[in-house]
Amino acid sequence: MDAANIRSLIAQLGDLKTGLYQKDFLLTWNQSDHDLRAVLYAAEILEEMYRANISTRVFQGGLAVSNFRDKSTRTRFSFASAASLLGLTAQDFDESKSQIAHGETVRETANMISFLTEVIGIRDDLFVGYGHEYMKEVAESVETGFCDGILPQRPCVINLQCDRDHPTQSLADLLHLQKTYGSLDALRGKKIAMTWAYSPSYGKPLSVPQGIITLMTRYGMEVVLAHPKGYDLQPETLQIAGRHAAASGGSFRQVDRMAEAFEGADIVYPKSWAPFVHMEKRTTLLKAGQGGKVEEIEKEGLALNAGFKDWECSEKLMALTKGGKGLYMHCLPADITDVSCPAGEVAASVFDRYRDATYHEAEHKLYVIAAMILLTRFESPARILGDLEAKAPPRRAV
Amino acid sequence: MDAANIRSLIAQLGDLKTGLYQKDFLLTWNQSDHDLRAVLYAAEILEEMYRANISTRVFQGGLAVSNFRDKSTRTRFSFASAASLLGLTAQDFDESKSQIAHGETVRETANMISFLTEVIGIRDDLFVGYGHEYMKEVAESVETGFCDGILPQRPCVINLQCDRDHPTQSLADLLHLQKTYGSLDALRGKKIAMTWAYSPSYGKPLSVPQGIITLMTRYGMEVVLAHPKGYDLQPETLQIAGRHAAASGGSFRQVDRMAEAFEGADIVYPKSWAPFVHMEKRTTLLKAGQGGKVEEIEKEGLALNAGFKDWECSEKLMALTKGGKGLYMHCLPADITDVSCPAGEVAASVFDRYRDATYHEAEHKLYVIAAMILLTRFESPARILGDLEAKAPPRRAV
Amino acid sequence: MDAANIRSLIAQLGDLKTGLYQKDFLLTWNQSDHDLRAVLYAAEILEEMYRANISTRVFQGGLAVSNFRDKSTRTRFSFASAASLLGLTAQDFDESKSQIAHGETVRETANMISFLTEVIGIRDDLFVGYGHEYMKEVAESVETGFCDGILPQRPCVINLQCDRDHPTQSLADLLHLQKTYGSLDALRGKKIAMTWAYSPSYGKPLSVPQGIITLMTRYGMEVVLAHPKGYDLQPETLQIAGRHAAASGGSFRQVDRMAEAFEGADIVYPKSWAPFVHMEKRTTLLKAGQGGKVEEIEKEGLALNAGFKDWECSEKLMALTKGGKGLYMHCLPADITDVSCPAGEVAASVFDRYRDATYHEAEHKLYVIAAMILLTRFESPARILGDLEAKAPPRRAV
Repeated sequence: MDAANIRSLIAQLGDLKTGLYQKDFLLTWNQSDHDLRAVLYAAEILEEMYRANISTRVFQGGLAVSNFRDKSTRTRFSFASAASLLGLTAQDFDESKSQIAHGETVRETANMISFLTEVIGIRDDLFVGYGHEYMKEVAESVETGFCDGILPQRPCVINLQCDRDHPTQSLADLLHLQKTYGSLDALRGKKIAMTWAYSPSYGKPLSVPQGIITLMTRYGMEVVLAHPKGYDLQPETLQIAGRHAAASGGSFRQVDRMAEAFEGADIVYPKSWAPFVHMEKRTTLLKAGQGGKVEEIEKEGLALNAGFKDWECSEKLMALTKGGKGLYMHCLPADITDVSCPAGEVAASVFDRYRDATYHEAEHKLYVIAAMILLTRFESPARILGDLEAKAPPRRAV
Repeated sequence: MDAANIRSLIAQLGDLKTGLYQKDFLLTWNQSDHDLRAVLYAAEILEEMYRANISTRVFQGGLAVSNFRDKSTRTRFSFASAASLLGLTAQDFDESKSQIAHGETVRETANMISFLTEVIGIRDDLFVGYGHEYMKEVAESVETGFCDGILPQRPCVINLQCDRDHPTQSLADLLHLQKTYGSLDALRGKKIAMTWAYSPSYGKPLSVPQGIITLMTRYGMEVVLAHPKGYDLQPETLQIAGRHAAASGGSFRQVDRMAEAFEGADIVYPKSWAPFVHMEKRTTLLKAGQGGKVEEIEKEGLALNAGFKDWECSEKLMALTKGGKGLYMHCLPADITDVSCPAGEVAASVFDRYRDATYHEAEHKLYVIAAMILLTRFESPARILGDLEAKAPPRRAV
Repeated sequence: MDAANIRSLIAQLGDLKTGLYQKDFLLTWNQSDHDLRAVLYAAEILEEMYRANISTRVFQGGLAVSNFRDKSTRTRFSFASAASLLGLTAQDFDESKSQIAHGETVRETANMISFLTEVIGIRDDLFVGYGHEYMKEVAESVETGFCDGILPQRPCVINLQCDRDHPTQSLADLLHLQKTYGSLDALRGKKIAMTWAYSPSYGKPLSVPQGIITLMTRYGMEVVLAHPKGYDLQPETLQIAGRHAAASGGSFRQVDRMAEAFEGADIVYPKSWAPFVHMEKRTTLLKAGQGGKVEEIEKEGLALNAGFKDWECSEKLMALTKGGKGLYMHCLPADITDVSCPAGEVAASVFDRYRDATYHEAEHKLYVIAAMILLTRFESPARILGDLEAKAPPRRAV
């Protein structure tokens, strides 16, 4: 992409009216259409500036704190990459895995880690009903800290995956679709099948399918959700998807067979997740300090899974998609049959054909994170990007 | 604060004669009054420059190594923040928790981690009689390495908490008092009560009370130390406090009741610590490789603690302070009754009233660390800060 | 060293024809003489520029990823230091210790961590027959990712120690010899004794002796390898050493007594390593998931070791070296008799005499790593270093 195109994208970003400055990014359904478009624009601009060897260091110092309840090496890596891209120093500060902190503890910790902090990226998807609440509590704590003059700046909180939504993933997926089909408008009327798929592992979060059905329904798509009995998503997200579909002129429906969802689909997103009720039981046990019993639930979950090994994205199913050429999507890593496990989410030959596409899909994520930081931390992000494009030093020596 | 005020602070810093260049910062009582004032000035200047969006990156690269015997997430975070503020890259290099390294091992490791290193921040407060000695050994090793031409620069060693002192905490506390009352001179004659308080946890280090009584007695304050029988501090620090009080025209005395200490106090600092004799027993056991028996000592310690649950900073006690409005201080996190535990160091309503104050107190710490790095690593820190104030780019894009 | 000398070194670097750009650095014996000389020049230039307080940040952002199968704190530290020296942000991304990843998993992970990555430093020396293969697989993955347009740049892979070679160590050692004797040509005809030495620990990798015999034979040196029966190196490396010696006019031979190797030696490198056959057995067990049996092998290995306690670099043996003044080398940390263990690789008085020399030897390593990054990532490294020498800001404020 040449400089003129980058400048054009920056101008389009400048035309959007967003409400992100000094705010957080927690749930896509609480953000306006302009907010979401701004994230897509900014992500694309940052990606193109990186490829054009233009430094995008809008910060000379300052911290980006990651706060994760689990290990999640890849998410941590993405977040640190995005921080580095903007000139921030990444710092880990993890809450304990076993306790659900709240109240005074959250308020104090949030302030203690924020004296020099521009962004706090949180991943907390293990406890149904708590992840999003925790993020809100951190956000309120730093908001108060800033208003009371404790913090010299108001760090934004970015949801790197919670129990309800996974906005950095779903927006990276949306950017992938926009790039694949040319524009957001081109998505209108396209059928996307978000379907459960078999995996030999247990407890994958629900945030990806929930994020997809709530986001894609905003763009006039025909969204079909398919899963075996017992793998329901959080009811709230189904309602939101329905509301979005009605408003955008798209549709949202549920089916109980993979083949039905794949039939004529432009896009398929087959992915495993845990049953919501199991996640709830697990949360209750952990809260009650009965972590020992979690193993039983996991065994139950795996036994339930095993009944649905035929939920695999096979060549036969792919043949049902539009023209047999539906786009396969996955947030990676995928469980690939005969490659990463004896039976998994997707057949090896299918994955092989779409490998490069899924890699591009994944690349967008770090730029989406960086875009969220940029938009929440600067009042005039387009002007700042324009200044960088015009005057910034090369990212690497030339 | 406007630019003229920052420049005025820088000029005042420039007038001080300090002996910190190419040295370490280990114990406040080995530093001159000018050294300590320089730390306060430099910390305040860095804090104000940060708030004024002026980059304080005096380094373009170089390392800040943290070397901790325990986990201490917050101290590590403060140190890494201070490093980032000055443009250094923070790197962890932790000595084993279970062994007390010395001799050849310390010398070699100290040199191996110092080829690009400007500062080594050490926290080693677990072993009575060893923490400070270890820091001295590291400092001597890098001093020799520098003099022998092994190291291109002489890294400074900064005490982030040892068995004797906690200078980054006590100087942050002093800066808090200076800002609260307007000047160091205004502290003269003020009464400060450093008292033990009940906590359900065990083994909190003695370095905070020891740091407070030895430092505050230098400024003509009336320092009163209170603790139950058995919770004595290291005798050396009591002697130093007495000497300082005599020299400064202040006073230092010990009482055995919290109420007596609070009576008419301008400032109270109620905080738990472990009995010194228990810390010594623990050290002896650990050195002898009998870590298993440490648990017994901890049980003993907790049982002893439990006898003093009434040592709580209650509203009733606060009412005894000067005009009922004494300043409550704490190094955080505090054990708050009915909030973080059923019975703790401070009543919830008291903590609530002073929360913001304690947060400000905590903020100073990272700037104190940065100030120590600046003063030990540059011969003319005031001129360098002046150059930054005049010419440095904004810290974040504007 | 003054500016004119640095410029002279840069000019000499510019005269070399290297094939390193857009490639990896895995095994010294696959690199041309010019490649190796370029690493030495670039390392020396970076070291001198650092000492002359010239910033060597050729990158404004970008990642340096370390991927280690074991803990190896020091190597991680060196790599992160080298990254920081060039302006890259170091990030850890460790493959599991217990599994040998390959195929799809390696390809995907390699791409996922490389969107912003300039260099991947890998240490994988535990599994005979796999370490080097793993690095090649990562290198092929990112090469393909770059060619297919997935990755915006082609990260280089640097071998920080594998089962076959340890190029950053052996080149740091070579730079040490070059500086000690004035030039590479001066090494011609010098006798170097690479000998096994007793250590109470088990399983030290073979990559150091293998790296030394294959590299030093290229410079016309008389390389003598000595070890007890059973401590053979990988046969391939012996053949390479022989071939190199024949080509360079040097020599390579094996003896079975330490004294014979030391006799008249200019340089001695006494160091422990594990028997190759034991390493192979261990690998087989680990691959078969029988990690529990590894302990038995380690016991066997330690028992075997114990028979050779007299393989110590003693004063008596040192007296046999040329004029009794042979140069002692070690990659550190050394097992020093009566200092780090009751009986070790070297007598305390010998080590003491050469301590500073081994520290200098160690210092070169981080610059060698930085040199490899520079040479593989830039087409015209000499010009870029020249630009920095002429125009870069000071590394620390002056």
